[in-house]
Amino acid sequence: MDFYKEALIRHEATHGKVEVVSKQPIETVDDLSVAYTPGVAEPCRKIAENPDDAYKYTCKSNTIAVVSNGTAVLGLGNIGPTAAMPVMEGKAVLFKRFGGVDAFPVCIDAKTPEEVIQAVRFIAPTFGGINLEDIKSPDCFEIEQTLEKELDIPVFHDDQHGTAIVVTAAFLNALKVVGKKIEDVHVVLNGPGAAGTAIIKMLVHAGVKDIVACDSHGIVYEGREYNRNQKIELAKITNPRQIKGELADAVVGADVFIGVSVAGALTPEMIHTMAKDPIVFAMANPTPEIAYDEAKAAGVAVMGTGRSDNPNQINNLLCFPGIFKGALSVRARDINYDMKLAAARAIAGLVTDDKRSAEYIIPSALDPAVAEAVSSAVAKAARDTGVARA
Amino acid sequence: MDFYKEALIRHEATHGKVEVVSKQPIETVDDLSVAYTPGVAEPCRKIAENPDDAYKYTCKSNTIAVVSNGTAVLGLGNIGPTAAMPVMEGKAVLFKRFGGVDAFPVCIDAKTPEEVIQAVRFIAPTFGGINLEDIKSPDCFEIEQTLEKELDIPVFHDDQHGTAIVVTAAFLNALKVVGKKIEDVHVVLNGPGAAGTAIIKMLVHAGVKDIVACDSHGIVYEGREYNRNQKIELAKITNPRQIKGELADAVVGADVFIGVSVAGALTPEMIHTMAKDPIVFAMANPTPEIAYDEAKAAGVAVMGTGRSDNPNQINNLLCFPGIFKGALSVRARDINYDMKLAAARAIAGLVTDDKRSAEYIIPSALDPAVAEAVSSAVAKAARDTGVARA
Repeated sequence: MDFYKEALIRHEATHGKVEVVSKQPIETVDDLSVAYTPGVAEPCRKIAENPDDAYKYTCKSNTIAVVSNGTAVLGLGNIGPTAAMPVMEGKAVLFKRFGGVDAFPVCIDAKTPEEVIQAVRFIAPTFGGINLEDIKSPDCFEIEQTLEKELDIPVFHDDQHGTAIVVTAAFLNALKVVGKKIEDVHVVLNGPGAAGTAIIKMLVHAGVKDIVACDSHGIVYEGREYNRNQKIELAKITNPRQIKGELADAVVGADVFIGVSVAGALTPEMIHTMAKDPIVFAMANPTPEIAYDEAKAAGVAVMGTGRSDNPNQINNLLCFPGIFKGALSVRARDINYDMKLAAARAIAGLVTDDKRSAEYIIPSALDPAVAEAVSSAVAKAARDTGVARA
Repeated sequence: MDFYKEALIRHEATHGKVEVVSKQPIETVDDLSVAYTPGVAEPCRKIAENPDDAYKYTCKSNTIAVVSNGTAVLGLGNIGPTAAMPVMEGKAVLFKRFGGVDAFPVCIDAKTPEEVIQAVRFIAPTFGGINLEDIKSPDCFEIEQTLEKELDIPVFHDDQHGTAIVVTAAFLNALKVVGKKIEDVHVVLNGPGAAGTAIIKMLVHAGVKDIVACDSHGIVYEGREYNRNQKIELAKITNPRQIKGELADAVVGADVFIGVSVAGALTPEMIHTMAKDPIVFAMANPTPEIAYDEAKAAGVAVMGTGRSDNPNQINNLLCFPGIFKGALSVRARDINYDMKLAAARAIAGLVTDDKRSAEYIIPSALDPAVAEAVSSAVAKAARDTGVARA
């Protein structure tokens, strides 16, 4: 199937993907008087008395906004809010299909972080959570941090944390396949943007002791000339051996390479310098840092990509429906690191010991068990960490 | 049925009313690749090249926002955005049920007109139209006017124009019942707030020559002490005989009384002073300016109220689904007066000469023919006035 051609056909046939329907019958005059005036005044009064009743009487309880300003859409870049709509609609219907979460695409005409923050502040009363999407780095960091602090509903930038959670899940299982321990491995991450930075933080949180970040200027280390803001922070939690140089230098002896960078960034020659049984997650989209077959031929033990036509597809879809389903189910006010790690472990746990192999470290994104397992684990972690309100 | 009690039961059972579903199948890996990455990139690219393609490939073509800051909700007043949600959800599902229009409730934490305007500006790329709802007067005037001017999608404050359109429809048929001509009648409007002001402008646009507005300070006239802003404007287009005094003075000899004010504002004694075959639209909610039976007993020839348990229910539902259906169908950039008047005439026209009577001047809000007729008339008027873009 030519996905691009088929996408135009299907999107034109239905004029997009999202439809808004009623959960209540609207057939009789009585139905009208219950769903609308005069009856509707009663839930309004209850919520006016006790704002928490919004979770009881309105769609806020199960509805999130998929918010984007269109500044970093897929591989397309800064195409703006209107052109970002097909992606946000797609995300919204996946939330519903896999997590049972009602999600509405909100593409906003907001360029600066301040504008995005203000836009989300305005619409927050409507929603039980905010999924930020395809907002360019480094703006996305400030936006997420500010909103997380200010709002009493969870705010989650999927490009950062969704990716980090699924990578962590795959990582945990890949280590089992090659028989290495998390505290022993050397990890190299190429491309510490929004997703890359989140992956680093998550892996550190999960127990990785030695992780080195590489950007277009080479290895990130404390005091490097090109460091600013989040790179300075990053340098503090990475590169304990304080190595310097290029990506080729970083991967020497490394157990794991994680790429969220560009096609061709990793060569067979580099793989030959890695430690025994190297693990490679090459997630550049749509073309990985190195092709699956080429990496395997070069001796990679476990390989993951973002592609559905290779084994081990590292796909955010494994995470986002379940994480919001879980957060909404206990009315979590945040999605904290314990909840994220619980999600990663739940995803990893679906690959049982007897099934796990180099070609199967992560479940299928279409497996309905995934969102259920993630949701339960996230809800439990929310309760355990005191951010659940129901 | 106890509507208030039943409303709590139903709203709690389904946690509100609005649900977001997919118009495309999401079952197979191929479906995912079409609805989401990688296929979705293609409609994104098309829209990036030509923003108008958003109407071809996204839900913008048939989706509006029902926007409120909750400052003037039903009879409840300023209850805020969270407590306003049940009303906006109700409105949204009625748009879908009667007009086939996808509508999403957007309750915003925005107090000043500037904040509301900014919030709507931010979210505008997502939507094909904006229905403003339950925003207090006089803020609603500035908000609507500014947004109408700035945005290239239609902006419609239903409390103003929806009411005005349906009142005009009822008015046209009521005049036929009593055999009076629009250019001859004297009209009194009590309560020139958001709805009242719009009704006056609409009736003037439709051909009424003599209309007098009364507010809590009495009759509005040019140079009156209490006039400011929109009252000054109102004074210019009303009260050609420059009468002064109270409501009781205004109604003497009047052919039509229209109330969007408070229960009890109109007395049988006042009705006795009106012209022969008086018409009364008493639309205070939930209790009219005068009760139906009391008005009829006092000699009212044609009586309309906002209530479903009286004949001639003047209900915005007759208008808003069809007016947006029509505007969206031709991608109108505005909803202008000709379109509004076309809507009013289409509603009136559904009551045929052989069926029309003092008890039947307006069709039932549940009649599926209403939205169809309104939509067609509005689309035609949009084309005729050059605001249609498709």
